[in-house]
Amino acid sequence: MTSDTTSRSSAPTATTAATATGDAVPVPPDAEAGAAPGPTPSGGRAGTIAPVVPSRAVLRPLGLDEVRITGGFWGRRQQVNGAATLAHIELWLEREGWLGNFDAAVEGRLPADRRGREFSDSEVYKLLEAMAWEIGRTRDEALEARFEAIVARVAAAQEPDGYLSTRFGRPGQAPRYSDLEWGHELYCFGHLVQAAVARARTRPADGDDALVTVARRAADHVCEVFGAGGIESVCGHPEIEPALVELYRVTGEERYLEQARLFLERRGHGVLEDVEFGRAYFQDDLPVRDATVLRGHAVRATYLSAGAVDLASETGDGDLLDAVSHQLDTTVARRTYLTGGMGSRHQDEAFGPDYVLPPDRAYSETCAGIGSVMLSWRLLLADGSPARGDLIERTLYNVVATSPSPEGTAFYYTNTLHQRELATVPEEDVASPRAASSLRAPWFGVSCCPTNVARTFASLAAYLATVDDDGLQLHQYAPAEIRTALPDGRAVAVDVVTDYPRTGEVRVRVAGVDTHRWTLTLRVPAWATGATLEVAGERRVVEPGAVRVTCDFAPGDEVVLGLPLEPRFVRADPRIDAVRGCVAVERGPEVLCVESVDLPGTAHVDVVRIDPGVAPQDRGDHVVARGALVDLAEHAWPYGDGIDREVADQGAAGTEIVLRPYHDWATRGPSTMRVWVPT
Amino acid sequence: MTSDTTSRSSAPTATTAATATGDAVPVPPDAEAGAAPGPTPSGGRAGTIAPVVPSRAVLRPLGLDEVRITGGFWGRRQQVNGAATLAHIELWLEREGWLGNFDAAVEGRLPADRRGREFSDSEVYKLLEAMAWEIGRTRDEALEARFEAIVARVAAAQEPDGYLSTRFGRPGQAPRYSDLEWGHELYCFGHLVQAAVARARTRPADGDDALVTVARRAADHVCEVFGAGGIESVCGHPEIEPALVELYRVTGEERYLEQARLFLERRGHGVLEDVEFGRAYFQDDLPVRDATVLRGHAVRATYLSAGAVDLASETGDGDLLDAVSHQLDTTVARRTYLTGGMGSRHQDEAFGPDYVLPPDRAYSETCAGIGSVMLSWRLLLADGSPARGDLIERTLYNVVATSPSPEGTAFYYTNTLHQRELATVPEEDVASPRAASSLRAPWFGVSCCPTNVARTFASLAAYLATVDDDGLQLHQYAPAEIRTALPDGRAVAVDVVTDYPRTGEVRVRVAGVDTHRWTLTLRVPAWATGATLEVAGERRVVEPGAVRVTCDFAPGDEVVLGLPLEPRFVRADPRIDAVRGCVAVERGPEVLCVESVDLPGTAHVDVVRIDPGVAPQDRGDHVVARGALVDLAEHAWPYGDGIDREVADQGAAGTEIVLRPYHDWATRGPSTMRVWVPT
Repeated sequence: MTSDTTSRSSAPTATTAATATGDAVPVPPDAEAGAAPGPTPSGGRAGTIAPVVPSRAVLRPLGLDEVRITGGFWGRRQQVNGAATLAHIELWLEREGWLGNFDAAVEGRLPADRRGREFSDSEVYKLLEAMAWEIGRTRDEALEARFEAIVARVAAAQEPDGYLSTRFGRPGQAPRYSDLEWGHELYCFGHLVQAAVARARTRPADGDDALVTVARRAADHVCEVFGAGGIESVCGHPEIEPALVELYRVTGEERYLEQARLFLERRGHGVLEDVEFGRAYFQDDLPVRDATVLRGHAVRATYLSAGAVDLASETGDGDLLDAVSHQLDTTVARRTYLTGGMGSRHQDEAFGPDYVLPPDRAYSETCAGIGSVMLSWRLLLADGSPARGDLIERTLYNVVATSPSPEGTAFYYTNTLHQRELATVPEEDVASPRAASSLRAPWFGVSCCPTNVARTFASLAAYLATVDDDGLQLHQYAPAEIRTALPDGRAVAVDVVTDYPRTGEVRVRVAGVDTHRWTLTLRVPAWATGATLEVAGERRVVEPGAVRVTCDFAPGDEVVLGLPLEPRFVRADPRIDAVRGCVAVERGPEVLCVESVDLPGTAHVDVVRIDPGVAPQDRGDHVVARGALVDLAEHAWPYGDGIDREVADQGAAGTEIVLRPYHDWATRGPSTMRVWVPT
Repeated sequence: MTSDTTSRSSAPTATTAATATGDAVPVPPDAEAGAAPGPTPSGGRAGTIAPVVPSRAVLRPLGLDEVRITGGFWGRRQQVNGAATLAHIELWLEREGWLGNFDAAVEGRLPADRRGREFSDSEVYKLLEAMAWEIGRTRDEALEARFEAIVARVAAAQEPDGYLSTRFGRPGQAPRYSDLEWGHELYCFGHLVQAAVARARTRPADGDDALVTVARRAADHVCEVFGAGGIESVCGHPEIEPALVELYRVTGEERYLEQARLFLERRGHGVLEDVEFGRAYFQDDLPVRDATVLRGHAVRATYLSAGAVDLASETGDGDLLDAVSHQLDTTVARRTYLTGGMGSRHQDEAFGPDYVLPPDRAYSETCAGIGSVMLSWRLLLADGSPARGDLIERTLYNVVATSPSPEGTAFYYTNTLHQRELATVPEEDVASPRAASSLRAPWFGVSCCPTNVARTFASLAAYLATVDDDGLQLHQYAPAEIRTALPDGRAVAVDVVTDYPRTGEVRVRVAGVDTHRWTLTLRVPAWATGATLEVAGERRVVEPGAVRVTCDFAPGDEVVLGLPLEPRFVRADPRIDAVRGCVAVERGPEVLCVESVDLPGTAHVDVVRIDPGVAPQDRGDHVVARGALVDLAEHAWPYGDGIDREVADQGAAGTEIVLRPYHDWATRGPSTMRVWVPT
């Protein structure tokens, strides 16, 4: 094994030299290798078993057959997802009658017997998508049978012209497309198509597939009705856009790409009726090319942006890509919670104005977190920036992983950063209001989040690594086996051995049998000041960004990234008024929180103060900070000249304040909780 | 003139001695005079021209014929209300077709021609109420004719059994009472009854009145349908409760009181269907006697509580009175904005948890402010506590007065305490979404606030003063003529001469011709530390609370209250996280704010910092504080270790920061604005 690392600030050496880049500034990892900037045909590969497979991109995603998570934090999540969550969702879809709606359609019992909200069909499709990825991951035959049984019920309800909805269009129901603002018909088609895309990429056998056939017929119908000369409008909830691009990628059918383009270009010109929340709610206020920041309903905004990146990647539309990239950057700088959560408004599940990020009214919907990951991942494939991987990691650990219970059978819909009241435990057999629950609930009247978590976890391995002409890039760290090939056919095989994020060592061990030269690129998170890289027994400090190691890698060679996991204080931009005078504590990629179950007696988290002058300490399964529990007097009128000095006058802090990962909060019962703690 | 003032902390002297009480603790002003605590029959008087006339109360309200506002801050508001707002509302009710709905009902054009939301009838009734008070105040004959014309249209739509709604019950419409949760039928009846109560108390002539007849028929119908043995439920929006008690007060008809009691006792037992926001939304989660704090929809909560106080006053139900009194006290201590605004949630227009009071997401609906005044006024009549007058004053100046434009033709529906984005000017001819407008709008899709402001301003004189057996109490300070009599028939006449709140001197001059002994009680606001009282040329400092002067008052005698109007800093209870590290500035009863129109160039209010070490100074029409305009850097990720120190490191503050009354904000065009400013 030969290796050499030089700082990126030095003059680049020949491509035969290994290079460690330390810039936080987005730089495509292959820029040094002389590749032309921008997408290259090497980006995509037919047959990749992954959620997003662009034909052209800077980085090529790897499929579930190329990356396998073998354990650890995410391995456990995947295991629970497959073993419990999928069945839990199926049970609730039956219990609530949302699956039965398809049977009712076939049996002529609509609209009388219809159950659930206007978009309930989409939950069935998202379960199918999750199942498809899980089948692709595990080849579970029992699951395959369950999958096929559901597909058969869905397929039976499709109308001769391809239209498929249990909510519209039948006698006694509202006509098709009579309520594009709120009806969610195209949104449902989008999820149907996404499920079919997952199926097409993972199906066990060749030949026609029932779900793919259904979805193609539906997509053809959509192109017919909404194509040139058809209805010149869009769906109030984006989703069909990325779905159609993905279906184009699977089928090569240009009309799907064209239809996605039409939907994207139409939106923003006020084609939908105005609504109480304004047209920004569904991003119909401004063309996607003209916007400077994400706004409106956060799930809608991220899904639409994901579709825009998909379109830009396929069409080589650099302007569109730049526009969306800039929008996400602005959103991250001004409208994103510490957890990565997006959406500060309960009223319309929407982004608020810049810097309005109250922790106690954080909406931070689980699905918006997933939408953010979808968007960041697409941009990462398109531009290679390590900052995308940072946000994905933050969001996965602190939004997506927060939603499901350890058992995988209860979920947060919203993810507040400050719980002020002790929650009541939701009833096991009753669907909860979506946002009111302050404990994880088994199901919701609007139950988009459980199925979204399920499909994300089942396909999670696809978000770990990519390849380009030069080599392999690791974006997320989990114990994994990676067996892939570079575009020129050279095999690359590594095992990732790590207990991250419990410990900070990430050991990348070259597997396989061949020795040849390639570049291993590792993301060094922005928080990881003092990270180290050990190559061929030599350890050096590397800066946050992307670090590259080019070697003649031989089986058994190891590259070891050391990420510093000392807990650290963070503060917020002064414009985020809601957390002025507070600190939060992070450890590695995890945001921590204080919970009242860790306080003496019945103390409320409101009484906790932290001394930011004493560094927090790691104690294994928790972190402690120095602080105090203060007495808070009740005032008849809570405003006055010296009212805030009462606390300051209580003197020095000497209590150990326990902090634990936010994603685990409320797993020990009802608790008050806060991420941001006053100093 | 003889007078003597002693501190309340001294032993009380004989009732022949004048007493200045300085306690902030609620004490009925007549407690010292030996009257039994609790309501007395002297509280109410038939024929009083006022919105709330309890049969029994500690204090007797005065009518519009007894108190006349002669100018000043509120005089101008009343003048504009009568000259512009009433006609503006009538115009919009015609334009939007909400008045036309009654014609459509008569002409058999419903439901086809119905316009507006399910509760649009109530806006017509609130306009009638406002007109009735205005007629009572001014005896304007042209207004009387307009009033009668509207009443005729309403009356024509009433059905033979007394039911009256343009939204329910006719062929093709939903059946009567088929949606008690959201239908607002009884809410509309409540406002109809309130309008009739105003009419009954102010009508120019004796004999049957058309509106009173309509309302009594409607009320009889309600008692029929919802009385014992009838529908055992309530309306999703309280309002019928106080209305029925008031109608009982006007008519003496016991069944109305009994029906109000039934509605109040039924609520809180889950008689309504659950809704997404939970039953707390319409206070059906807990019986009104068992609640400890106001919760749910803030207008619903305050209206219901007002009805509960009305019921308690009529039935002598001390437990119920105590329960509501305690709920308001807790709400004021934990769930009320500095402005007096109530409701921190846009989603459900509701109270949030304790201490969740983000200024930038303040909902603080104008109608909730009015509901708070309604509630506080009823409690003030019932318990005489000066703290009630404090909250009324705060809310009138900083919520209710903030809503209308100086011209009286545009309104705030919500009253945020922090405007972060420059607003666009609402179109003149288009109804605005209710909460989205960040500038005053001429009308709203849900337009409850303009009519509520109109009826409040038209009847505002009734909130200034009361009498009891001992004398006269002044609760609010405005230039006024008061001509009344004590329960024993002795005439009491005073003129209030003041430019308050521009200046702090309130001169109470005895008018009339008789000399006799009575007690003048003046409210000294809680903020008025250092207030002075001048009696017979002698000035002394009095403490906040209620100050009493007992004299043989002769015509020409003067008592002069001096209220200190030096601007002052206030801070918030440390549990109100959203404004930690900030100060607000108040001047007298007015909350001030910073507006970007007073900053150089295009500066945003976010850059303003105030130095709390230098007292703010009065400059006549504005106040200045010492402070700084800081540079705020943009960060790709707005969280980090030292991110907040950038501002602190910018050193000393030397800029004059201009602050003006919050109620005037945005009257000079779009502006960013904040009440709470970081130090």
